[in-house]
Amino acid sequence: MPTILGQNQYGKAENRVVKITRDGDTHHIKDLNVSVALSGDMDDVHYSGSNANVLPTDTTKNTVFAFAKEHGIESAEQFGIHLARHFVSSQEPIHRARIRIEEYAWERIATSEGNSKFIGADEVKHSFARKGQETRVSQITYDGENWEVISGLKDLTVMNSTNSEFWGYVKDKYTTLKEAYDRILATDVSARWRYNWTSDEQRMPNWEKSYEQARKHMLQAFAETYSLSLQQTLYQMGSRIINSRSEIDEIRFSLPNNHHFLVDLEPFGLKNDNEVYFAADRPYGLIEATVLRDGVEPKIPVDMTNL
Amino acid sequence: MPTILGQNQYGKAENRVVKITRDGDTHHIKDLNVSVALSGDMDDVHYSGSNANVLPTDTTKNTVFAFAKEHGIESAEQFGIHLARHFVSSQEPIHRARIRIEEYAWERIATSEGNSKFIGADEVKHSFARKGQETRVSQITYDGENWEVISGLKDLTVMNSTNSEFWGYVKDKYTTLKEAYDRILATDVSARWRYNWTSDEQRMPNWEKSYEQARKHMLQAFAETYSLSLQQTLYQMGSRIINSRSEIDEIRFSLPNNHHFLVDLEPFGLKNDNEVYFAADRPYGLIEATVLRDGVEPKIPVDMTNL
Amino acid sequence: MPTILGQNQYGKAENRVVKITRDGDTHHIKDLNVSVALSGDMDDVHYSGSNANVLPTDTTKNTVFAFAKEHGIESAEQFGIHLARHFVSSQEPIHRARIRIEEYAWERIATSEGNSKFIGADEVKHSFARKGQETRVSQITYDGENWEVISGLKDLTVMNSTNSEFWGYVKDKYTTLKEAYDRILATDVSARWRYNWTSDEQRMPNWEKSYEQARKHMLQAFAETYSLSLQQTLYQMGSRIINSRSEIDEIRFSLPNNHHFLVDLEPFGLKNDNEVYFAADRPYGLIEATVLRDGVEPKIPVDMTNL
Amino acid sequence: MPTILGQNQYGKAENRVVKITRDGDTHHIKDLNVSVALSGDMDDVHYSGSNANVLPTDTTKNTVFAFAKEHGIESAEQFGIHLARHFVSSQEPIHRARIRIEEYAWERIATSEGNSKFIGADEVKHSFARKGQETRVSQITYDGENWEVISGLKDLTVMNSTNSEFWGYVKDKYTTLKEAYDRILATDVSARWRYNWTSDEQRMPNWEKSYEQARKHMLQAFAETYSLSLQQTLYQMGSRIINSRSEIDEIRFSLPNNHHFLVDLEPFGLKNDNEVYFAADRPYGLIEATVLRDGVEPKIPVDMTNL
Repeated sequence: MPTILGQNQYGKAENRVVKITRDGDTHHIKDLNVSVALSGDMDDVHYSGSNANVLPTDTTKNTVFAFAKEHGIESAEQFGIHLARHFVSSQEPIHRARIRIEEYAWERIATSEGNSKFIGADEVKHSFARKGQETRVSQITYDGENWEVISGLKDLTVMNSTNSEFWGYVKDKYTTLKEAYDRILATDVSARWRYNWTSDEQRMPNWEKSYEQARKHMLQAFAETYSLSLQQTLYQMGSRIINSRSEIDEIRFSLPNNHHFLVDLEPFGLKNDNEVYFAADRPYGLIEATVLRDGVEPKIPVDMTNL
Repeated sequence: MPTILGQNQYGKAENRVVKITRDGDTHHIKDLNVSVALSGDMDDVHYSGSNANVLPTDTTKNTVFAFAKEHGIESAEQFGIHLARHFVSSQEPIHRARIRIEEYAWERIATSEGNSKFIGADEVKHSFARKGQETRVSQITYDGENWEVISGLKDLTVMNSTNSEFWGYVKDKYTTLKEAYDRILATDVSARWRYNWTSDEQRMPNWEKSYEQARKHMLQAFAETYSLSLQQTLYQMGSRIINSRSEIDEIRFSLPNNHHFLVDLEPFGLKNDNEVYFAADRPYGLIEATVLRDGVEPKIPVDMTNL
Repeated sequence: MPTILGQNQYGKAENRVVKITRDGDTHHIKDLNVSVALSGDMDDVHYSGSNANVLPTDTTKNTVFAFAKEHGIESAEQFGIHLARHFVSSQEPIHRARIRIEEYAWERIATSEGNSKFIGADEVKHSFARKGQETRVSQITYDGENWEVISGLKDLTVMNSTNSEFWGYVKDKYTTLKEAYDRILATDVSARWRYNWTSDEQRMPNWEKSYEQARKHMLQAFAETYSLSLQQTLYQMGSRIINSRSEIDEIRFSLPNNHHFLVDLEPFGLKNDNEVYFAADRPYGLIEATVLRDGVEPKIPVDMTNL
Repeated sequence: MPTILGQNQYGKAENRVVKITRDGDTHHIKDLNVSVALSGDMDDVHYSGSNANVLPTDTTKNTVFAFAKEHGIESAEQFGIHLARHFVSSQEPIHRARIRIEEYAWERIATSEGNSKFIGADEVKHSFARKGQETRVSQITYDGENWEVISGLKDLTVMNSTNSEFWGYVKDKYTTLKEAYDRILATDVSARWRYNWTSDEQRMPNWEKSYEQARKHMLQAFAETYSLSLQQTLYQMGSRIINSRSEIDEIRFSLPNNHHFLVDLEPFGLKNDNEVYFAADRPYGLIEATVLRDGVEPKIPVDMTNL
């Protein structure tokens, strides 16, 4: 046979599971989008169409929903660990499971004072508005022995309206850009950080707290860095996380430079004193880099922050 | 001529203007997407291509950016009023201007305690994260005499995890749905409310406060209504706004019923006690209605909440 | 009661139905996205939550799928007519039904010569690729007596790389645009045309042929008009359809002006002889107008072409 | 320093360049979306913000537009090769350039017979409609010595309405799926194939012809395979390309299983004889695999087909 099969994986993608936990009248939500990808002894199904080793993608879907009941959803990471372990442990032909999860955050709706006058409502503890800011993401991979957990976020739009410059760059025959000494710096953060938890022997991180802290440090570093380039800001963001969170060894960013161009108002006899900007769509600068704890081997793929 | 021209309008759509206001070190953002549509004596340009009456769409774009400097952006509504008045007043062939605005909200990034140890930062007052929840919208129309202001929001996703039922409905030969006595009620709110401010003689509403209050009342009504149908919830949401805000006479909603189906876990020997739901995409119920102050004539078009 | 209910409607939106018709080994596809909106005696469900007059949206969904079997799908329009008639005729509280349909076109995949050497295939007559060009749309409304059918298309992207000019326009203090004597004219056509078929007494148009012809005439008018403004091109497109198709009385367009800006290559010592363009995203001009058969009353709503 | 910089790259993304070539009255279009990513001696800009080695992303944008004039756009691949070579050759600190390109296809608008009666038009040779089917993609990487060219397509939606089965799979406690002996098989093809052209010494492939042929073979294999699993179909598609095109050594696919569920019409007393399907959105099966020429080392990253 002149052609052979290479890396392959399959499973059900984008299982949208919502879990309500009732603590008396007070409800809690977990809202996930779970994608399963399984690998193993899958030559036959590709070469001949024999499904003898194939657990149907429909079954992987059912397992997601059943596990939400059986194990609850403590965190996206913990839920992914339950799922990955199950597929690899219970199915002999499956040697590796990769679970990808998106999580959508919700906040409680504040209710009115003296709302008892309204129809049928006591104090409301079951009403939520979706936060709608970043999407939290996680990828859990298990090969029967070792774990890899890469978490992060995407679509977190941030802006510094000052404390950003850009000058002193290379100029070639195609360069027309003017140097900037006070510009807007804005980006949609896509970040993925890798945990150094890899084995059941190790103590597991507190996934919820770790996410919250990593996000906080990253935002603070963005806000507090006086920026001479988006690359410098990126490095500060990554470095701050590595230095603050011992459970994280590596982080990768894709940061589009969301250009805000100062509008030329001179033709109208007006002076634009860093006040009025045009927010452009395309093209945009795209700055991507990995920041690592010294001595650690990088493992986050180049394009993972663009998914 | 066997064919004639009907309603027509033109202008520059989706001008993305960001205005930074500096109050000492503390910066404020207004982030708008402004679309201009002008109507008037435009027969010639359609019939013969003569542009003698046509102010270029490029000029309407320039005006948006120039006005951000000349008038500032106190609110989306006030900004739209400046623009609409300008086009109708300054251009004889233009008889009517309609300004549509989307507004994106930002919140401040909280900075670290003792951040002085970080590079180049004092107390940070110029750093923002986009809120990313609903998009605020407004439409301002002026014909040289009367104003119409319709404001609202879209893409505000909300959920009640209980206090919703659905039963007692019509059953025909195509009905298979089972009655529900405790279900999730979730929707993406799209709402447009019309102000009764129509003339420069009247006192203008406080647009910022009015938006905030209308949003708050709507969310509270959603949370506090024990729902027997999404229609009933919709009516309560609209009614609460009309009753609470004298400046608003009419409101229209499009509320998709974001179905959360209880997953059947019995095949796996599990009981689903209103815990695990599948969040479906399509199809979805779509409930649309106008709620009016009694005696008022409705003016919000049927599809305006679907734009 | 200080607030009252205005216009309202409800139903299941975006029912994705695919119908395969087998003509021996040759298969045919109809691929629709059907949305149902019903109106009538619906005060109670809004005021009190009583569903006594409410046919569930789930039932309207079931009806769509059942009718694909019972009536087949001859055309989107004919299918919508079956559905609208059914809801109004069979449900006393329902006085008006509006069916909106999107249709996606498919083309056959050409198979290889001598393909008999490949696994398990004879001449292939059941394989399709989605065309992916415009989306065909239709809206069918019935009130128990009269019909209104508005059909059209959206997202048909077209370009003339020459034969377009723009000059002789109004210049005010915010005008900086330079006149253009040879520019690209590009747009994403969104068009809706209204048929003058309104009653079961009249002979029904051939919906499939009418769509095909209207599309063809519109494209030809776009290509063949030497354009002094996008408004002029729009009028020619509408006029050509009205003049060529007696079954159509009115047409409305929304035509974004997809700006292609000539790139200034002079800083690099190059001459740009109408060769290299930057295709911009936002802002864009937006030209909207209705073209009517003389003597006919316009009925297509202003924003219908923006849905 | 406890943290270090890992893999990094930067450049201007999504430069939308349209090139018109005039062959007398007959015009030709190339419509590309070009993204530049450069790597090299970039430690300083990350660690200290020094831009001394940084060619601005704005300059990379200018270069894209200038090169469209200087070199023309013979094919996406050839254009990317010009760009990558330029950045690596002309900028000492830049050691590697990766150019990603999306290409949008256009077709000519057929004009009317006897169109001379219409305004200002001769035979029309400058009018186009965007095809709107798949997006052609390419990635060209150069390190000053070796080339890697990976091309392909995405969003090509295809369907077989029969000749697909799925049975004989593993059944565990979470399996509820029923075996299928005649089902719809539909997917949105995302494919990337790697050329074995790696050096300026080798004869370059005919990129345009190769794309056309690879696409054709892939579609034919999809249509002509009697499928027992989507994995089997995928392998046939890849294998057909490798066997037919000697310039291609490796291909990777991501194939969502676009589920078309047979609708249960029995509750309405109807039989669904493989006629009426519900086209579901999420979840979907996702089948991903690489197919290789025997003896070749795989190089296409796992997630490249998901970008």
